[in-house]
Amino acid sequence: MLSEDRIIHNYFRTAGAERSDVCVGIGDDAAVLEPPPGRNLVAAVDTLNEGVHFPAATQPAAIGHRALAVNLSDLAAMGAEPAWATLSLCLPAPDEAWLEGFADGFRALARQHGVALVGGDTTRGPLSVSVQLLGWLRPGEALTRAGAKPGDGVYVTGHLGGAAAGLRLLLEGRASTSEPLTRAFLWPEPRVAIGQDLCGLASAAIDLSDGLGTDLPRLLAASGAGASLDPEQLPLAPAALALLGASAAREGALAGGDDYELCFTVPAEAEDELAARAVNWSTPVTRIGCVEASPGLRFSGEAEPAKLPEGWRHFEEKGS
Amino acid sequence: MLSEDRIIHNYFRTAGAERSDVCVGIGDDAAVLEPPPGRNLVAAVDTLNEGVHFPAATQPAAIGHRALAVNLSDLAAMGAEPAWATLSLCLPAPDEAWLEGFADGFRALARQHGVALVGGDTTRGPLSVSVQLLGWLRPGEALTRAGAKPGDGVYVTGHLGGAAAGLRLLLEGRASTSEPLTRAFLWPEPRVAIGQDLCGLASAAIDLSDGLGTDLPRLLAASGAGASLDPEQLPLAPAALALLGASAAREGALAGGDDYELCFTVPAEAEDELAARAVNWSTPVTRIGCVEASPGLRFSGEAEPAKLPEGWRHFEEKGS
Repeated sequence: MLSEDRIIHNYFRTAGAERSDVCVGIGDDAAVLEPPPGRNLVAAVDTLNEGVHFPAATQPAAIGHRALAVNLSDLAAMGAEPAWATLSLCLPAPDEAWLEGFADGFRALARQHGVALVGGDTTRGPLSVSVQLLGWLRPGEALTRAGAKPGDGVYVTGHLGGAAAGLRLLLEGRASTSEPLTRAFLWPEPRVAIGQDLCGLASAAIDLSDGLGTDLPRLLAASGAGASLDPEQLPLAPAALALLGASAAREGALAGGDDYELCFTVPAEAEDELAARAVNWSTPVTRIGCVEASPGLRFSGEAEPAKLPEGWRHFEEKGS
Repeated sequence: MLSEDRIIHNYFRTAGAERSDVCVGIGDDAAVLEPPPGRNLVAAVDTLNEGVHFPAATQPAAIGHRALAVNLSDLAAMGAEPAWATLSLCLPAPDEAWLEGFADGFRALARQHGVALVGGDTTRGPLSVSVQLLGWLRPGEALTRAGAKPGDGVYVTGHLGGAAAGLRLLLEGRASTSEPLTRAFLWPEPRVAIGQDLCGLASAAIDLSDGLGTDLPRLLAASGAGASLDPEQLPLAPAALALLGASAAREGALAGGDDYELCFTVPAEAEDELAARAVNWSTPVTRIGCVEASPGLRFSGEAEPAKLPEGWRHFEEKGS
């Protein structure tokens, strides 16, 4: 039987990047880390539960990737540089093949972004993965949700609605129908470099975890503003458009969640600079609308706030 | 129905101390924090699952207290000063009375130790609470598990075996039998000030989460040493001794876990200084044995490593 100490030793000691600023890593009561001078610390935590955030029997490497990716996406939305992670893993029973796959998925993404795994906790219970991610940014450079002003352009990275369609295919047992869609759900690519590049340029930012129709209103509420969107400009995932048609693909983009793209606002006078920087980005960026003073989210041409499909939220799925 | 945003707003915005070094707290994609210059960062994470780490129907305030206490205990074992926490809370359903009780228990302990709650995550699933705690210490002053040398005295704070006996009473539905024991389990007092006072004095330290018989060997293994204990010197919880008798109380102290006292080693030449500092501590400290070069844990007078009862470990409770 694998003890907690063994699991940590066998699978997690090497599940991240090596960093010289880790004074005490995995294996003591807590990690001791050497922060770079003159920076602010950024901390995020996000938990994924089997059956809630991913279907049962999801491949363990994808779970390891996804658990880190959703936190990298949070740091990206702040414009921060990721550095160190801790992991709390709750498993029904220790399973060596599962642990190996999980650690592989986590490790590949951690090394890609230079993240060291510095501590954690392994407990027994229903499968649940919680990652806490720490990183850095220059004081005053944080991209928060507050700061969007009327006249700012509203932008998103990448394509929307692919992950929601992929999840649907997985739940229906049709994962083979469209690989790009299931891949969008299982292997999201956090926009870490783009987030850092937006510092000093974007006026507000948020990452799209629950769907544009839920997350953009959060940004607008924090900024005390509203926005008008052009539905024709939403960058729908091509494979979702092909599979579902325009209307359902658009609904997935607004309400589906799990895209982990960035949504951000840029003052009009900085939009040329944005276009210049975006040339070097790994994914397209699309202007989808404009910030307005009047609260709420409208589609262009409509006077009243749009009736958007609700994003997928915990606790609101069940009745009672 | 309470949404995640509502839960965070209603219960967790005020669930910690106020700190001026929190630039962006709860409610954005990540927290932004201002670290004190010239310190090392210390990070711990510990998760408590219902039915594994505490019995079903445990009062929510005790769960809130305990989830933070076990992490404060980890920071205490490093000699660190706690500062900021994030919380990942997984709930079967939103329950306002439960959330209020939980937040009350968390808040009281957080304010006592000056800890701000700066972020978190609320998900749906079986009850599970994961706290990530961040704090600080001076470079080079961390108390690690490595560092114990032959000749050092082995010490523990407080009394041992009370929490294990309390858990047994709770599981047997006899919580009223001995309030000090159930209290020891439900409301552990992390030894944060003592841990900080041990910096520059102790050669190694660990907190007792799984029982002295499991945790002290971890410290000894990390130090490449062994120890001899005097079983007569173990500071058994008086109420456990009265309820269970000496033999069972001793077994609880060694194998029971959940005491969250500190176990540490002190070089012979520093033992007078320890006695002088301990006068001001809120709980007694007891010398229970001596570090030796030969690996393993022995009881005094025995030549062979003692056959200790196994500490309570996840995954090892179930067979298969």
